[in-house]
Amino acid sequence: MKDEKALYEELKETFVSREEIFDGYIVHLVRDTVALPNGATATREVALHNGAVCVVPITDKGEIIMERQFRYPFDRVMWEIPAGKLDPGETDHLEAAKRELREETGYTAEKYTFIGEFFPSPAILSENIHMYVATGLKKGDQDLDEDEFLEVITLPMDKVVEMILSGEITDGKTQTAVMKAKLLLGL
Amino acid sequence: MKDEKALYEELKETFVSREEIFDGYIVHLVRDTVALPNGATATREVALHNGAVCVVPITDKGEIIMERQFRYPFDRVMWEIPAGKLDPGETDHLEAAKRELREETGYTAEKYTFIGEFFPSPAILSENIHMYVATGLKKGDQDLDEDEFLEVITLPMDKVVEMILSGEITDGKTQTAVMKAKLLLGL
Repeated sequence: MKDEKALYEELKETFVSREEIFDGYIVHLVRDTVALPNGATATREVALHNGAVCVVPITDKGEIIMERQFRYPFDRVMWEIPAGKLDPGETDHLEAAKRELREETGYTAEKYTFIGEFFPSPAILSENIHMYVATGLKKGDQDLDEDEFLEVITLPMDKVVEMILSGEITDGKTQTAVMKAKLLLGL
Repeated sequence: MKDEKALYEELKETFVSREEIFDGYIVHLVRDTVALPNGATATREVALHNGAVCVVPITDKGEIIMERQFRYPFDRVMWEIPAGKLDPGETDHLEAAKRELREETGYTAEKYTFIGEFFPSPAILSENIHMYVATGLKKGDQDLDEDEFLEVITLPMDKVVEMILSGEITDGKTQTAVMKAKLLLGL
């Protein structure tokens, strides 16, 4: 097996030029021309993203604070853990995790444990979601964005894992973060 | 807890109109105007996607056929399981899974087990990745696309799970599909 640096040198695609396609409310799309390892050029369509966070909030009873939210691209209500984008210019993922948990569910937490990164779609999207487990929860009031509508439901962790394994929970970050919390923390 | 149909009726966003933003090689971006539950309107930027597949190929010895591939949005080489998009007009996910496994790794499999759906980024991307476990593997020849460069490496399943838990594997579908295979199949 090649070491990572050697493989990077062999496979890397080098930036040549950038065309701005669209800079919207959420999606910032560019089309870059890159030089391929074989010397040819190709285009890479990339949705640039400032980063995001998601949180597995676990109560003292071993329950998870879940959300049910309408997702327009699938025209359905989905089960997800609390999550959100970093604000423009924001770089502190932990602060963003605290904010999103509080705003979406009303909960604050005594302890946040970082459990890794999640790249949702690394071929076309530069989004990197930092995943946390939050424990020592205290309930306060929700503070949703004006165009945000969601229902907060508390479910036993075993039930959430069962809903992942049965296919009822389809959201990627939720599947990864909950299973990782289970395997890492021995829950 | 509200039943799913009632919650859908309460939270649904209704299509009003669509603006075509960009129809590229991979990304097809639209901006839809929608009616919100409170009667206001909002815009939703959505990257439309035809669907995709990923495969956890497990050898008789309990090893996983992994790939190391350069991902331009992150300027790094990443560990991933074999995966790929459905061809334009293609609707059979299983056929796509067989094709991607064979083309990217050279392997064919006696048995494919569907282990669920993975929505990478449900707020902005309509992509739905069908996940499979492939067993009864036989090695043949790779058949990569012209602009596809990747290295195929076989690793023990325990090692891959360890790389997920340690944070070395960041790809979303890979984290979900491998942990799901482990928990579902008791591996």
